[in-house]
Amino acid sequence: MAPTLELLEEPAGNLPVKAVSAVRNGTSAHDLKLESPEKHQRVMNVFRAFIADICQQYGEGHAGSPMGMAAIGIALWKYVMKYSPKNCNYFNRDRFVLSNGHACLWQYLFLHLVGVKSMTLEQLKSYHSTKLDSVCPGHPEIEHEGIEVTTGPLGQGLANAVGFAMATKNLAATYNKPGHEVVNNMTWCMVGDACLQEGVGLEALSLAGHWRLNNLCVIFDNNSVTCDGTADVANTEDINTKMRATGFNVVDVYNGDSDVAAIANALVAARSSDKPTFINIRTTIGFGSAMAGTADVHGAALGVDEVANVKRSFGLNPDEHFHIPQDVYDFFSDIPGRGEAHEANWQAALVKYHEEDPVLAAEFELRVTGKLPEDWTKCIPRKEEQPTSSTASRKSAGVITNALGQSINSFLVGTADLTPSVNVAYKNKVDFQSPELRTGCGLNGNYSGRYIHYGIREHAMCAISNGLAAFNKGTFIPMTSTYFVFHLYAAAAHRCRRERPHAPTRRRCSLYRAMPNVLYIRPCDAEEVAGAYIAAIQATETPTIISLSRQGLTQYPQYSSREGTLKGAYVFVEAEDNDFDVTLIGVGSEMGFAMQTRDLLAKNHGIKSRVVSFPCIRLFEQQSREYKHSVLKPRAGKPTVVIEAYPSYGWERYADASVSMNSFGKSLPSKEIYEHYGFAPESIAPKVKDLVEEVRRDGIEILRGDFRDFNGGLRIGFEH
Amino acid sequence: MAPTLELLEEPAGNLPVKAVSAVRNGTSAHDLKLESPEKHQRVMNVFRAFIADICQQYGEGHAGSPMGMAAIGIALWKYVMKYSPKNCNYFNRDRFVLSNGHACLWQYLFLHLVGVKSMTLEQLKSYHSTKLDSVCPGHPEIEHEGIEVTTGPLGQGLANAVGFAMATKNLAATYNKPGHEVVNNMTWCMVGDACLQEGVGLEALSLAGHWRLNNLCVIFDNNSVTCDGTADVANTEDINTKMRATGFNVVDVYNGDSDVAAIANALVAARSSDKPTFINIRTTIGFGSAMAGTADVHGAALGVDEVANVKRSFGLNPDEHFHIPQDVYDFFSDIPGRGEAHEANWQAALVKYHEEDPVLAAEFELRVTGKLPEDWTKCIPRKEEQPTSSTASRKSAGVITNALGQSINSFLVGTADLTPSVNVAYKNKVDFQSPELRTGCGLNGNYSGRYIHYGIREHAMCAISNGLAAFNKGTFIPMTSTYFVFHLYAAAAHRCRRERPHAPTRRRCSLYRAMPNVLYIRPCDAEEVAGAYIAAIQATETPTIISLSRQGLTQYPQYSSREGTLKGAYVFVEAEDNDFDVTLIGVGSEMGFAMQTRDLLAKNHGIKSRVVSFPCIRLFEQQSREYKHSVLKPRAGKPTVVIEAYPSYGWERYADASVSMNSFGKSLPSKEIYEHYGFAPESIAPKVKDLVEEVRRDGIEILRGDFRDFNGGLRIGFEH
Repeated sequence: MAPTLELLEEPAGNLPVKAVSAVRNGTSAHDLKLESPEKHQRVMNVFRAFIADICQQYGEGHAGSPMGMAAIGIALWKYVMKYSPKNCNYFNRDRFVLSNGHACLWQYLFLHLVGVKSMTLEQLKSYHSTKLDSVCPGHPEIEHEGIEVTTGPLGQGLANAVGFAMATKNLAATYNKPGHEVVNNMTWCMVGDACLQEGVGLEALSLAGHWRLNNLCVIFDNNSVTCDGTADVANTEDINTKMRATGFNVVDVYNGDSDVAAIANALVAARSSDKPTFINIRTTIGFGSAMAGTADVHGAALGVDEVANVKRSFGLNPDEHFHIPQDVYDFFSDIPGRGEAHEANWQAALVKYHEEDPVLAAEFELRVTGKLPEDWTKCIPRKEEQPTSSTASRKSAGVITNALGQSINSFLVGTADLTPSVNVAYKNKVDFQSPELRTGCGLNGNYSGRYIHYGIREHAMCAISNGLAAFNKGTFIPMTSTYFVFHLYAAAAHRCRRERPHAPTRRRCSLYRAMPNVLYIRPCDAEEVAGAYIAAIQATETPTIISLSRQGLTQYPQYSSREGTLKGAYVFVEAEDNDFDVTLIGVGSEMGFAMQTRDLLAKNHGIKSRVVSFPCIRLFEQQSREYKHSVLKPRAGKPTVVIEAYPSYGWERYADASVSMNSFGKSLPSKEIYEHYGFAPESIAPKVKDLVEEVRRDGIEILRGDFRDFNGGLRIGFEH
Repeated sequence: MAPTLELLEEPAGNLPVKAVSAVRNGTSAHDLKLESPEKHQRVMNVFRAFIADICQQYGEGHAGSPMGMAAIGIALWKYVMKYSPKNCNYFNRDRFVLSNGHACLWQYLFLHLVGVKSMTLEQLKSYHSTKLDSVCPGHPEIEHEGIEVTTGPLGQGLANAVGFAMATKNLAATYNKPGHEVVNNMTWCMVGDACLQEGVGLEALSLAGHWRLNNLCVIFDNNSVTCDGTADVANTEDINTKMRATGFNVVDVYNGDSDVAAIANALVAARSSDKPTFINIRTTIGFGSAMAGTADVHGAALGVDEVANVKRSFGLNPDEHFHIPQDVYDFFSDIPGRGEAHEANWQAALVKYHEEDPVLAAEFELRVTGKLPEDWTKCIPRKEEQPTSSTASRKSAGVITNALGQSINSFLVGTADLTPSVNVAYKNKVDFQSPELRTGCGLNGNYSGRYIHYGIREHAMCAISNGLAAFNKGTFIPMTSTYFVFHLYAAAAHRCRRERPHAPTRRRCSLYRAMPNVLYIRPCDAEEVAGAYIAAIQATETPTIISLSRQGLTQYPQYSSREGTLKGAYVFVEAEDNDFDVTLIGVGSEMGFAMQTRDLLAKNHGIKSRVVSFPCIRLFEQQSREYKHSVLKPRAGKPTVVIEAYPSYGWERYADASVSMNSFGKSLPSKEIYEHYGFAPESIAPKVKDLVEEVRRDGIEILRGDFRDFNGGLRIGFEH
C-alpha cells in the first residue's frame, strides 16, 4: 500500500532550528491527504462491530465509549500521531494517554490494526477474560506494549499527560540545539466527562494552561453520558469557556461520530497552537446500537440480537464474529513503515547531534538510556561529613536535594507551594516555567528549569510526577515535597505509581506501609537520610516516600548507618554479651525517645535495653530470616517495645508493646505536643519497666494475643 | 450603643411566603446603614495591630491573611451575617466557614469582639501556644464555640460549605410552608488562592454551580500571594471567567483593604442572587506592615520593630500590646442583642409553625434535635427475613439503604456516578436538584430530593458529606457510595470527618483501620451487613465505612450475627469441647474461604478448626480483655490464621499467619482472580495443615517473631 499521507513530521536533524520548528508545529490542515469518507465509514463499521462482538463474548465490559470514539481513533492512529508500532518505546514518539481508561478496548483494537506485535487477535479476544497473561486487561496497564501509563482511576491519566508534555519541554529546552532537534514529540490525551470532573484532572489542567504546554492536546470524547444518565445530571458548566479561562485553545468538532477529516484537522492544528489545545468532540456513546446515546451502553454488552442488528445496519454479516476484513488491515498497512522512517530519521539526527556536540550528546544518551551519571553518589554526604549537633531531618535531606538538584539534570524537584518550608529549593535553581511568563515576584524561569511550583495541588503534583517518571524509564527522577497530612490528597496518585518518583515529605503512614510497591522510609538522623536517598534512587521500579522532621533531631554518628537503613532495620545499640531485658525500637523522629528511655531504664531501674532503628518495614521484609532474627532476637524471651508517634497498627509483627499515637493531633510546638501524647522518657520508662517485670515473672508467653498499647488503642466516639 | 444597622433578616413566621422570601433575599444594599469610613479604619487599625502582637508573641503563626482580611471581617460580623454570639449553635444561624483555615486568628478575634463567651482575651493570647485547652489552636477545630467545621487542609472547608448550603436547601424545601419559613440561613465561605487551586474545591464549586445554590456565597481573599511568592508563580488563569462558566454570579471588590461598604454591599447582594455568588476581593496580605503584599508575611511574625512600626503608622501606641480600646468593643456591642432577637424570632416562628402543622413541626423538631424516629430499626431486616442463598453484600446493603432512604428524611444518599452499580438508589427516590434543572435523561428533581448525583467527584462527595453532617448534629445522616479504589481520592476528606457520615462502599483498608475515629467494617453476609448499619447509625461521633462485595456471598444464617458484628469479632463456629488445632479468621467477602478451608482440613487432614468472623477491628478493640480472649483463645497454644484479600499488615495483633493479597490486582472475574492470588480452599488448606503440624512438633513459641505470609510479603521492585 502506498502511504496516503505525507509524514506529518520529520525529525530533521539537519535543518536549521527554525525550519525544524516549522515542521513540528506547522503541518497545516491542507497537508492532510485523507482517504475517502466512504473508506473511513467502512473502517469504522468493522471497528464498531468488533467492539460489540468482544463485549458480547465477555458478557460485560465497556462497549459504549469505544464505539463512540471510532472516528477519533482513525484520525489519531492513521493520520496524526507519530509512533512506531514495531518499536512502541521509540524515544521521540508522540505519547498517547487514554485517561478514560475504561475505554481501553478502543486502544487495544487500534494497536492491533496498526501492527503492534503483541496485540494479536487472540489477545484481543481475551479482553477482560480469565486469561491471566492477557495484554488486554479491563483497564490499560503500563506493563504492556503501546501503553504509556496505567489508567482507570479517572483524571490520573490527564495529569500523567501533563507530566509527559513537561518532560518533552524540559528535554527540548535542555538538549535541542539549532539544527538539532532531538526531542519534539506531542502528547495526546483522551478524556471523558469524568476526567474533567475529577479534581486531579482540574488541577492538572490549570497547570498545563499556566505552563503554556502547547505540546499537549486534550481530546474530549463529549458523549454527554455518564453512568448515572446524561452528564447534565451532575454537570451543567460551560466547559469551553472554562477551558479558555484555564489557558487552553479550544476547538469544537460537531460530528465526532464520522467526520474523521474535521477531527484530524483539529488535531493537526493543535501542533501549531501557542497554548495547550482542548478539542471538544461531540460523539454518540454506543454509536450504531439501539441504545446509542444512553447510559445503558456505557458498561454493558449489547446482547446477541442487538450485536446482530448493529452489524446489519453497517452492512456486515451478523454471523461473522471478530471479523476484520483484509481491506481494513490494508487501510493501516502504511503505518509500520512510517514508524520505521520516524525512528530512522531520529537515529540519523542523533548521529549528527553527536558530531555537533559530543558532550551534550553523551549526556542526552545517558538520559535516553535512563542512567544517572556514575558519580551521582558524590551528592550524598559521606558519613564523616554529617552533622553531629541537633538537625531537622528535612534540613539533612535538603543538603542532598541541593546537591542532586544542582548537578544532575534528571532530577525535577517541586513542591505544592511550600518552598519556604520544605528545604527542597536548591542553589541556583531555575524554575520550570513558560519563558513568556512574567510573575509579580520576579520568580521567572524557562522550560529548562527543573524546580517546579505546583501551586496548592498535591494530587496533580504526584500524578504529574508519575507521568514524568513514565515518560521514559529513568530519564527523569521527579521529587516532590509537602507536609505529610497533605499527602493524603494524593493518595490515589501514590497508588497508581509504578516507577521511581519519590517524595520527601514531613511526617498517615499505615497507608503507605500497606500499599504494594512503595518504600516508606522514616530516617532518624542525617546518616539515615543519606541511606533513604540511596534506597530511593536505587529503587527504579518502586516509588519512595521519605518522612522528615521539622524539629531538630539528635544525631547519632556512632550508631546510625546508611547501610543499616538500606536493610530497613538494624541494631542501633547492642547489648553487651547478649545480656538484655528489653529491645526498644526507635523509628524516625522518635529515635531520641528510645535512646533516652534506654538511659533512664538503666539509671533508675537497672534495666538493660538494646535499641533497634527501624526506618523502613518494606526493606526489612526483603532481608533473610537470619538477619531479621539477629536484629530483633524474637527467641530471647525478652519483650520488644516500639516507639513511634503514629498508630501502632502494623507494628505487632515486630513488637509486643507500643508507645504510639492514637487520636488526631493538635497544632502546638513539638516538645509540648510530644509530652501531651505520652512521648517523654520519664513517662515511657516506667511502663517499659512494668512490662519487663511482668515478663520476668510470668514469662514471654503472656504477651501472646495481648499486644500492649501503652497510650491506649485507636480512639472512637461511639454512642451505645 | 444604638444599633446602626437594621436587621438584615427577620425570620418571619407570620408573613406570607413570598414576603418572607423577599426579606431573605431582598435586603438591598441601600438598607445597609454603615458607620463612617473613619470608624471602620479605627477598628481595622486596632484589629491589625492585635494580630501582629499575637503572632509576635508566638514567634510565628499566620499574620498576613488576618491583617489583609480585616475589612471583610467587619462587613461579615458587623453588618451581614445572621448569628447569635450568646448561642453560637442557634439552628437557623448563617453558617460561616473559614476554608483558608490558617487565617483562623482573624476568626478568633472577631468571635471575641462580638462577644462569644469562651473566646476571652486570655484565650486569644494562647493562640497556637502550649496551653492545651486553648480554644485558639493553629487551625479552627469543630469542637470550639463559633467554629462550624475543622479546616486547614485546603479546599475542604469550601466543600463543607457546599454541604451546608445543600442542607439548608433540603430542609427549607422539606419543612418551610407558606407563611412559615423556619429554615432560611445563608452559608458564607471564605477562601484563599489555595482553595481555588485544590481539586476538592474545584469539584465542590462545579456542584454548587450545577445545583444553583444561591444561598452560598464564596468570598475570595484575593491577595495574589501564596507561600512560594506571588500566586502567578503557579496560577495565571482567569478566575472570574472560570467561576462564571461554573455557574456562579461574580462580583468584584477592588479595595478590599478598607472599603467595608463595597464589601458589605457585595455580600448583601449575594442574598438575592439566583446563583451562588463568588466575590473576588482584592486585599493586601499583611496590610500595614513593611512586608505587606509579599510572601514573607504569610506565615511569620513581623518582628518586634516592625510590630511597633505598624502600630505607629496606625496612630496606635507601640508600647501597648494586645490592646483593644473600649470604643472598638462598643462598635460591636449591638451584636449580641441582635443575635438574641434572631433567636427569639425563630423560636416564635417555630411556635406558630407548630400550631399550623403539628405533625410536620414534630418531625422538624426531631431533626433540629438530631434524633431519628424511634422506629428506624424497622428499616433493618430481622434475622429471619435475611436471605439464605448466595447474595452480594452490596445487595444486602441495598435493602437497608432502600428502607432508610424511603422512610427517613435524615438520610441523604448519593454516589459518585455509580447509580447502576452500587445499589443505593431507593424506591421512589427524588433527586436533589435545582427545580429549574431539565436534564437530557429526564432525571429531574428538586431541593427536597435526598438522592444525590455527585458526578465523578469522590473527594468533594465525601467533603460535602462532612458539611452535611456538621450542619447540625444528627440532622442529616449522609451516605455515600463508590468503588473502594476510588475512595482513596477522598482520603483527605475521610480524615477530616468528625461526625457520622457513612460510606457503604466496595472493597486500601489499612488506611481506614489505622485512621483515628473511623469504623471500618467488612461484613461477611446480610446479617453482618445489618450489624454494620446498626453500628454506623449508632456511632454519632464516628464516621463509618462499610466495605461490600459485588460478587455473591454465601449466607451463614446459622453462624452470622448482628450482635457479634457490633462487638467487632465473634466466634462463628466453635470447636466441640474446646478441642481444636487452629483458629481461622474469616473477614468479609473472604469468609467463604475460611469455612471451606475448615471443611477441607477436617476431611483431608483430620484437622479441627474453629472459625472467627472479624468484621471490624476498631469495635473489637473496645471489648473487654476477657471477651477478646474468649474469641481468639491466644493461650490455647494453637495457631491463628487470617484469610483476607488485603495486605496482612495490621493482622499480626490477632493472627500468626495470613492468606493475604500483597500486590496490585488485576481486572478479571472474581473466581479467577481469587484463585490467581491464592484464595482457594485447596491451596489454603495444605498450608494451614503444615503450620498446624509445625506447631504440634515445635510448640507455639516458634511463631513469635515469625509471622507467616502464606502468599508472600508485600512486593517491591528494587534494583540493588
